[in-house]
Amino acid sequence: MPGTYDPRTFKQLTFHDAVASFREGADTPRDYLERCLATIDEREPVVQAFANLNRETARAAADASTKRYKDGDPLSSIDGMPIGIKDLLETREMPTEMNCEALKGNFPKRDNAAVWALRQAGAVIFGKTVTAELGGAHPGPTTNPFDQARTPGGSSSGSAAAVAAHMMPAAIGSQVGGSIIRPSGFCGNVSLKPTQGAINRGERMATSMSTHGVHAGCIEDMWQASIEIARRAGGDRGCMALSGPLAAPLPIKPQRLIVLETEGWGALDEKSKQAFAAFREQLVAAGIELLDRRNDPEVELIEQAISEATAICADITGWENRWYQRNIVEEKGGGLSARAMATLEKAEALTPADYQARLLERTKAQAVHGQVARKADAMISLSCPGPAPIWAGDKPGEPRAARPTGNAVFNYPSSMLFAPVVNVPILAVDGLPVGVQLIGQKHEDARMTSLARWMLKTLEPVAIA
Amino acid sequence: MPGTYDPRTFKQLTFHDAVASFREGADTPRDYLERCLATIDEREPVVQAFANLNRETARAAADASTKRYKDGDPLSSIDGMPIGIKDLLETREMPTEMNCEALKGNFPKRDNAAVWALRQAGAVIFGKTVTAELGGAHPGPTTNPFDQARTPGGSSSGSAAAVAAHMMPAAIGSQVGGSIIRPSGFCGNVSLKPTQGAINRGERMATSMSTHGVHAGCIEDMWQASIEIARRAGGDRGCMALSGPLAAPLPIKPQRLIVLETEGWGALDEKSKQAFAAFREQLVAAGIELLDRRNDPEVELIEQAISEATAICADITGWENRWYQRNIVEEKGGGLSARAMATLEKAEALTPADYQARLLERTKAQAVHGQVARKADAMISLSCPGPAPIWAGDKPGEPRAARPTGNAVFNYPSSMLFAPVVNVPILAVDGLPVGVQLIGQKHEDARMTSLARWMLKTLEPVAIA
Repeated sequence: MPGTYDPRTFKQLTFHDAVASFREGADTPRDYLERCLATIDEREPVVQAFANLNRETARAAADASTKRYKDGDPLSSIDGMPIGIKDLLETREMPTEMNCEALKGNFPKRDNAAVWALRQAGAVIFGKTVTAELGGAHPGPTTNPFDQARTPGGSSSGSAAAVAAHMMPAAIGSQVGGSIIRPSGFCGNVSLKPTQGAINRGERMATSMSTHGVHAGCIEDMWQASIEIARRAGGDRGCMALSGPLAAPLPIKPQRLIVLETEGWGALDEKSKQAFAAFREQLVAAGIELLDRRNDPEVELIEQAISEATAICADITGWENRWYQRNIVEEKGGGLSARAMATLEKAEALTPADYQARLLERTKAQAVHGQVARKADAMISLSCPGPAPIWAGDKPGEPRAARPTGNAVFNYPSSMLFAPVVNVPILAVDGLPVGVQLIGQKHEDARMTSLARWMLKTLEPVAIA
Repeated sequence: MPGTYDPRTFKQLTFHDAVASFREGADTPRDYLERCLATIDEREPVVQAFANLNRETARAAADASTKRYKDGDPLSSIDGMPIGIKDLLETREMPTEMNCEALKGNFPKRDNAAVWALRQAGAVIFGKTVTAELGGAHPGPTTNPFDQARTPGGSSSGSAAAVAAHMMPAAIGSQVGGSIIRPSGFCGNVSLKPTQGAINRGERMATSMSTHGVHAGCIEDMWQASIEIARRAGGDRGCMALSGPLAAPLPIKPQRLIVLETEGWGALDEKSKQAFAAFREQLVAAGIELLDRRNDPEVELIEQAISEATAICADITGWENRWYQRNIVEEKGGGLSARAMATLEKAEALTPADYQARLLERTKAQAVHGQVARKADAMISLSCPGPAPIWAGDKPGEPRAARPTGNAVFNYPSSMLFAPVVNVPILAVDGLPVGVQLIGQKHEDARMTSLARWMLKTLEPVAIA
């Protein structure tokens, strides 16, 4: 049975276009929030995007924002924007439980740096969105808004699903391997996975390749939420912050794009290949030159450099997480899922030398990308291996599913390259979203946003049934 | 009144040379620990090096180690070594209060990655050593073991003082600006401030330029504690770990050294200049070529690149700490000293652009160092601006002292360069230690250890009265 998504007709919930009515008094941030809460009342029983909601503090924040617009003095371009926070990030008025039994009741009453910045910009923090356990592979209850039998992807499951379900215009996600771009691809959001380090992760700096990013219904909201955070909280320690204009970067038409296959291409379904081919044809018809591993030997060098991205990312992140995860297990006497424990134990078999060998492979891939990517305006590929897979829980007596939230095979390369990525929701297969991603060189976040905006404005969405 | 230190006769407490007797049964780790505890009983009332001591868990760990030696099966070269942990690092059997009112009673019952590694290597964790508040400038009660009117330096005050007072053979310190090498210089320890990232900081990764390091009575213990940690816990996420032999690197005579003045030279007292000049003469007499800003124009380039190190380090670290420190203040409704609050408020006046400009200055200095340092085996300078200053508390009604634990002016350059440093205790002025530091290129930690070992073996300590 097909899903309910058609990119040719689907309208996302947007925020930036409501601001004029806030200024004129025809609408208010409080009314906007109430519409979001009404949608949540309607859809949350099936979508299950939230780990926590705090309607009281959200209403108070929306009222304060309403007053600022009335006084002609909003704090920023996102003053009054209702925004969800992935439940890995600390928030002062809601617990941070990370979908992990061991962290039930964890309530540090602090704001993550990005949450702090959003609050300073006047955004309305109103919910913690469901994450896969500890940001890993073990899923929460969230379902795909376009087919409740399917996963929304992960680990930013609730953020992607809530935006797609019109519960809020934007949400914070985070990515280590593919946790922003994959669910965004499965749910038809735009999203930004910024250059490594470009948005301050606050207390979440335990790994060398994770980023905070933004899911949204449109490019404008995605960019404005991102830049308003970076203006206030900067980047990670030692890193240049996201930079660019305060308003969303204008559309730019690319001249030349590198098409990446990645490790994922071989196992891709035929309909998704067909959708991507139709998308490629539109690019060619628009006069854009496409380089790929078959017509350009240097692109083949990049493909080779990322050909083991899955294993490299798994080992690096496994090693970097093992110390803090083992501490949780020892402190709480357990409380991790069997899936998470299996990952932890695999990581604990690694030696420092194994880890360092993986770091060297990552560094080499970055060097190749740094050289070859200059040939084109960006690299493109699918954001996810076709539409979201069906997920109805592990089957009793059978081995645990390896990837209940879908495979991040198309995402590991950009994570490993520290590259900025924007998901472009422009394809559908069987009534379900399949994203296309634009991958830039480090610190080209604004430029990728411009290219994505051009694509969404100019190209025809492709739907394959 | 002069202090009681004479480098020509002072014998440090050492551990590595006790291991043979452990193996033979003539001595045991438990007896070694009891001797440390007896010294603590005697000297702690004046030195005040400890924030916490856990004699029970230490005795149990020492007994377990004693049994391993008896069974012929010690876990590592430091099995049984009593070691103190700076009270910024989490330890499972003692609170982690960071000499900060707001963190009184903070007891996470977890081990920092380095502590975890030490425990795996069989070391005896037995005390938390006093730190300046939050690793900053506001001092704890610790006094200099060679003159109780003077500071031991900071922020690793207790680690440096306890080793110098024979309370333990080694202790973990940490450095952001000058918090390992300066107190080590003031207390006559050897110490290693490793290459940025080379020892896993565990939960302490909030800043882009801090390191965990080791204070010890001798090169052998310093190196073995360091390498046993790195073998087990690796480096920071994304960083190459400390590498080198398992036994302390053999002595190497340098051929050519760069002598750095740094910002500190102008204000240095005459006796310390005289001591350093006598040290330089010994190097020249040994046939070592010395380059400095007067005889080599490239050395002048390094001096210029580090000429604002104090301000650059203050801004970078201030910015990176402000978010977590403000969270503490808000969560606890205060609880930071007036000195720490002043630092926090100064940092909060910085913009992301100010921070990024400082990062660029740091990157440029690293580039100059990377090029010029290749001319010589290492850079040398004093580790501290003369002997430890007198400190008896802020005077009522007067402005707070800027630097109660002494000025880190000689240390900011190597911190900013991410360079490995070894302190060589080879000078004394007025009966107080004045350290000399060896500064390498990134990942030359073992090489700096070799050069330090050669100096301690070959050169005559200099005492100026």
